[in-house]
Amino acid sequence: MKFVIDKNILLEALVNVTRAIGTRTTIPILNGIKFELTKDGLSLLASDSELTIRVMINEKDIKKVDKVGSMVIQSKYILEIIRKMPSDIIYFEALDSSKIKIYTDNNEYNLNCYDINDYPHIALTDSKEPITIDAGTLKSIISSTSYAVSTQEVRPLLTGVNLKINGDMLECIATDSYRLAKKNIKLNNPINNVVNIVIPGRSINEFEKMLGGDNDNEVVMHIFNNKILFKYMNIEFQTNLLSGTYPDTNHFIPTEFAYMINLNLKDFSDAVDRASLLAQNKDKNIVRVLIDDKVMTISSSASEIGKTEEKLSIESSNKDKLEIAFSSRYMLEALKVLKDEDILLLINSDDKPILIKSIKDESLLELILPVKTY
Amino acid sequence: MKFVIDKNILLEALVNVTRAIGTRTTIPILNGIKFELTKDGLSLLASDSELTIRVMINEKDIKKVDKVGSMVIQSKYILEIIRKMPSDIIYFEALDSSKIKIYTDNNEYNLNCYDINDYPHIALTDSKEPITIDAGTLKSIISSTSYAVSTQEVRPLLTGVNLKINGDMLECIATDSYRLAKKNIKLNNPINNVVNIVIPGRSINEFEKMLGGDNDNEVVMHIFNNKILFKYMNIEFQTNLLSGTYPDTNHFIPTEFAYMINLNLKDFSDAVDRASLLAQNKDKNIVRVLIDDKVMTISSSASEIGKTEEKLSIESSNKDKLEIAFSSRYMLEALKVLKDEDILLLINSDDKPILIKSIKDESLLELILPVKTY
Repeated sequence: MKFVIDKNILLEALVNVTRAIGTRTTIPILNGIKFELTKDGLSLLASDSELTIRVMINEKDIKKVDKVGSMVIQSKYILEIIRKMPSDIIYFEALDSSKIKIYTDNNEYNLNCYDINDYPHIALTDSKEPITIDAGTLKSIISSTSYAVSTQEVRPLLTGVNLKINGDMLECIATDSYRLAKKNIKLNNPINNVVNIVIPGRSINEFEKMLGGDNDNEVVMHIFNNKILFKYMNIEFQTNLLSGTYPDTNHFIPTEFAYMINLNLKDFSDAVDRASLLAQNKDKNIVRVLIDDKVMTISSSASEIGKTEEKLSIESSNKDKLEIAFSSRYMLEALKVLKDEDILLLINSDDKPILIKSIKDESLLELILPVKTY
Repeated sequence: MKFVIDKNILLEALVNVTRAIGTRTTIPILNGIKFELTKDGLSLLASDSELTIRVMINEKDIKKVDKVGSMVIQSKYILEIIRKMPSDIIYFEALDSSKIKIYTDNNEYNLNCYDINDYPHIALTDSKEPITIDAGTLKSIISSTSYAVSTQEVRPLLTGVNLKINGDMLECIATDSYRLAKKNIKLNNPINNVVNIVIPGRSINEFEKMLGGDNDNEVVMHIFNNKILFKYMNIEFQTNLLSGTYPDTNHFIPTEFAYMINLNLKDFSDAVDRASLLAQNKDKNIVRVLIDDKVMTISSSASEIGKTEEKLSIESSNKDKLEIAFSSRYMLEALKVLKDEDILLLINSDDKPILIKSIKDESLLELILPVKTY
């Protein structure tokens, strides 16, 4: 393997591929990045056995290909080395099957490599019916749901997001059983099969980071029984799926409400945030809300610290008093993904789920369970 | 106590005074900030018993003083509360001797306070012969030496910086016995006494953070046997001194050199940084330097990872070959405080101290011990 490459092109590819390197892998060679130089270009691949990322640098983006070949280079060093190289042009040359020389005019690194024959074979294959979705939409689906996955391994399925597709309807759900986020969108092209899979939360979050914000590029999803492969620009991103049947959460979501409350998002969010300051020592940071016609009073207290109270003007569909308590952390995380100026809180009683919705955008529904404080 | 104050004025004062709150204080009331409102203004004071900071907000910067008085308010909450308050004008009102109400139009906090009678009496007194120094100069003295203090409690005196004043000569030294930094400046006005004190590194670093960069303000130092009080703008900053006689380090610093090497600071610093990448698993990150007439070769290696080598053009006063090794971390920290484009490395042999100096600025001298690698 011998080639010359532009520093920034390689660096960007390395940053992306390194996301697959696990911090707790027990298989040493999975700390390496597989460099594979062919006449088509340079492929970089990394995997932690659950998650695999491959980035392809096209042959035309490589300054010079002197000799094709493959090496497995230690990821811990290569990224920092390339980042700190003093030149925009970097030379790679295999000295033998286990040593790579990386150099510029005045400096050189000689890195020991893993044995290429030990690297596991990881297939990145296409499905028969790939699904195309634009990157911006997929990013918004992921970011508005994945925060709600469970971090506890007790119920492993809840650590993933549930992706369902039926015809042209795509639905994405995440819940940790105390809160839930659900996003629906319509695909441009209906599919023939029915999809119902659970993608690990950690993987999907890594993928979301690679998707630019405003972005017209497309993502193609290749879905299998046990894995999903995303193709995006020059990146292939494959993750294992969680196995099992995701719980049906529909019966959990009320459809009629005693209270429909119209609120300014920022005012409400800031008020909950301020109330949570005095709730930080308590489990889940409980704050209390009293709804009384046109006034909402948000309060919290901790015997050793003190108490706080704040009033907000609201529009409520119901003039009866209602007191309800919830986790400020859950509420703030739910509010954070909403983009509208005004939002709706939908409530039935102090022990039924609270729904949080955008007024304009019907595609996202968020829910948190209240907490009984007596 | 009852007053009205501008949010940003109070916030800035709280940020400064909170620096004295220790993370590991065992005296509960020292987690509080003493608010003292008199007809002259509002004094905020915090202390961890080693370090005391007092900030005075002048009466003219307070919107309204309704009733003077004192309270000790929990520091953990007050800073965040003020930061997040939704209005620029904040009202304070003592409800009784142990409860303070902090409020705006729509929200209020009621905080439990410590008993003011339990707060230790801390005297901030002036010395007979205060020393005046401009803030920018003092900031540069601290930042170019204090990095070299020891972090190990084995030799407590070395965890502080040694400040000596004789006539109009001020000298500041820090060393952890493997490296040393020494800065000299001339005072505008000579003093009659001789000063030789050791200021705790942690304290002096906190004070440095409060000093703006370009800054014509003056700092007045009041020095006692066991403490030093700095007065700067509306801030009083007092710290206990370390007791004992700081070791004489002069015999440690060579005055003649076999090699005087002229180097570009950035090139050398970047090269040492790159070499240190492969030295990170080793104790103290040892890199090796070979000086051979006009070429310096910087290298490092780690058997399991690989090796690196880099060449720099230099001007040396000596054509003989010399190999020397040192801690890259120590070298990089020493280089970081130099501001010139070109610097001097002064070397005698592979087991004698390496001196690092700016070419233009004679006031700062830095030294690190080489490491024997065989």
